[in-house]
Amino acid sequence: MQTRPSLLRVGIAGLGTVGGGVVRILQEQETLLAMRGGARLELVAVSARDRAKARGLLLDGIRWEEDATALASAPDIDVVVELIGGAEGIARAVVTQALQNGKHVVTANKALIAAHGAELAALAEAKGVGLAYEAAVAGGIPVIKTLREGLAANRYVRITAILNGTCNYILTTMEKTGRDFADVLAEAQAKGYAEADPSFDIDGVDTAHKLAIVAALAFQRAPNLDALHIEGIRSISKTDIHFARELGYRIKLLGITSQRDGEQVEQRVHPCMIPLSAPLATVDDAYNAVQIEGDAVGRLFLEGRGAGAGPTASAVVADLIDAARGHRMPPLMVPAASLPSLQPADISGLKGEYYLRLTVVDRPGVLADIAGICRDQGISVASLIQHAHAPEEPVDIVLTTHQTRESQMQQALREVALLATLMAPPQMIRIEAP
Amino acid sequence: MQTRPSLLRVGIAGLGTVGGGVVRILQEQETLLAMRGGARLELVAVSARDRAKARGLLLDGIRWEEDATALASAPDIDVVVELIGGAEGIARAVVTQALQNGKHVVTANKALIAAHGAELAALAEAKGVGLAYEAAVAGGIPVIKTLREGLAANRYVRITAILNGTCNYILTTMEKTGRDFADVLAEAQAKGYAEADPSFDIDGVDTAHKLAIVAALAFQRAPNLDALHIEGIRSISKTDIHFARELGYRIKLLGITSQRDGEQVEQRVHPCMIPLSAPLATVDDAYNAVQIEGDAVGRLFLEGRGAGAGPTASAVVADLIDAARGHRMPPLMVPAASLPSLQPADISGLKGEYYLRLTVVDRPGVLADIAGICRDQGISVASLIQHAHAPEEPVDIVLTTHQTRESQMQQALREVALLATLMAPPQMIRIEAP
Repeated sequence: MQTRPSLLRVGIAGLGTVGGGVVRILQEQETLLAMRGGARLELVAVSARDRAKARGLLLDGIRWEEDATALASAPDIDVVVELIGGAEGIARAVVTQALQNGKHVVTANKALIAAHGAELAALAEAKGVGLAYEAAVAGGIPVIKTLREGLAANRYVRITAILNGTCNYILTTMEKTGRDFADVLAEAQAKGYAEADPSFDIDGVDTAHKLAIVAALAFQRAPNLDALHIEGIRSISKTDIHFARELGYRIKLLGITSQRDGEQVEQRVHPCMIPLSAPLATVDDAYNAVQIEGDAVGRLFLEGRGAGAGPTASAVVADLIDAARGHRMPPLMVPAASLPSLQPADISGLKGEYYLRLTVVDRPGVLADIAGICRDQGISVASLIQHAHAPEEPVDIVLTTHQTRESQMQQALREVALLATLMAPPQMIRIEAP
Repeated sequence: MQTRPSLLRVGIAGLGTVGGGVVRILQEQETLLAMRGGARLELVAVSARDRAKARGLLLDGIRWEEDATALASAPDIDVVVELIGGAEGIARAVVTQALQNGKHVVTANKALIAAHGAELAALAEAKGVGLAYEAAVAGGIPVIKTLREGLAANRYVRITAILNGTCNYILTTMEKTGRDFADVLAEAQAKGYAEADPSFDIDGVDTAHKLAIVAALAFQRAPNLDALHIEGIRSISKTDIHFARELGYRIKLLGITSQRDGEQVEQRVHPCMIPLSAPLATVDDAYNAVQIEGDAVGRLFLEGRGAGAGPTASAVVADLIDAARGHRMPPLMVPAASLPSLQPADISGLKGEYYLRLTVVDRPGVLADIAGICRDQGISVASLIQHAHAPEEPVDIVLTTHQTRESQMQQALREVALLATLMAPPQMIRIEAP
């Protein structure tokens, strides 16, 4: 059997919620982790911005470094845990220097891996150390391990995921309470479920970072954040939630990646209507979920907590146990040098079904105008809903389509936007059957 | 970085559905697997009972061994894949001899691991080779890896799982079609979904084997098949399915393991009523699912295909890739020598809610008799259903209880069975809220 260290000395950069969770697990489960990992995990040093901050952690006897990069060069540290966050600055410096100095790195930093994953993976390979990032995607759900190990025998077909708990919480709460987006967001902010600046979450950027990592692993490409189509959930109204239910769907912010026509990789983040019977439709509140389709395994569905101290620390410490076990592989599963750049599949080439909601003043001819635009674009209407209303009042006309090309739908949207009867921008939501 | 072999030479014992699936993946995904595993997986030799059997496999240039144990001693084989099945006989001999000869073993054999897991793990550790059995539990769902790696930072609280696709298919079909057990079983046998002798599946034995492996891993015990409480699904009638729906439940055959009072480990397999909102309740047809509760991660839910050539071969080949990567750890996560024997938690100590259905001739006093027995046993009735019927006709009285001790319920069942008005054995189903 390969030789294993009997001791793995850990330095943690960043002592926020997740960092605190990692410290607690290392301290409270010391014996269990040593037995499972085959080596003792010893917390040697930590670093964070504000030493005086009350954290409720027992840090006696653990070295405090004012400068996080000191962890990357400390001779008594084997593995640096980076929990600072951000694609650049101190986080990137700590990770790069630690790898350069021949230390293993465990990180929860999705922005960093999405932006610089290939370069950092190459560095880790060159130095013969591990770079692990299970906590970067879907918190406690071991999706990186599942892609890299559990399902490694599969050619991946498609991955569809709910990767942002804040968005899922907002959408679920809108549905449960019948309240509108802004209202639920404000409440989520007040409760601390959403950031003061929520754009990173609700505009789909966070989901995009995670999806870029998943896509890179699944399809063996260098992560490419520029090749993503991203839409958030700001435009989703309670009216859409209502119509979704009427049509037998729920609205979820999904990240979807698949390989199209052999070479191109599709990476898109946008709200979707999905059938109530789909496993992803059952994911409530702040839970995350990942559905993986592989050629051999078929459909595998994983659901769990995507954020929070416990679940994220669970993923970080699992990576530490891997390091203790001496398990090592190229961080992106195959050697970074062999990763071709990701050739994006343009969203305009997408084919699918669509939901279209138009708020119009219902005058004679409105329906004919809309129907005419669809006909001219070769769009076949699957269903149409218009509820009773007072004449000359604004009314929502909702239609769903049969299989349509995105480019046709986009052209139809441009033409519909010119209708004089339109009272608000048209709402389009893609229908997926994951 | 650790040295890896550039080539891993594979011998396969057993060429049934799964063996065929493994051969196909090895041949069709040769390049992908080599890239991901860092070593080429070369199929060197195979063995099966009947060489003449048409399998639709390309076996040119691959050595055929009449005796499967020859694979275990062949100098040109690094890893033996055992797909013969059975806890004893040739399967056990092949695995034992391969390990003794310093070869890695990958197996899908749940009976073998459940019965002899600790002994074989100790042998693998002594010889410094791997013994991997991802395919033994839940087919394509990587549950072994999830317990051993993805969630290794957690103290496990409870695992609740649907582990037998045949039972889940039968129960789902009974529910969908309103047909009775025997009828659906006969159809499943005719279609090849159930064996000619179905007892292994429907009496819960298969689930028990898998649960014993899961429990051993989660709670660090030697697998102990004798310490399981096992009930199958033969007694479930369409009437129970109907009442379950009326009460807001679905009936599933679950395997449940948890640690009770620190030391004792509960391992039970029996039909359960679970709320429609539980993720496990949404698992249809032949799908398997595993819900893992860990102290850090909270609830993780995994759903996928539990059987069949593709999903099972996916798990087998993932284990081969692990071997190619040089990943090695004690097969039961911690050294086999450190595993205490599993101290069973007796089912009589269980506390929970119960469903009780009594078919009686409705005469004056029947309800009073039943209510009296419940009262005498300290059982608090939560709900009671009795539908309208003709006088003096048999009628089903269904009651559900508040939290009750299993021992009280068993005593009540014995007393109820003595009632002269009882027309059929009383039906008891445990209610779980996973």
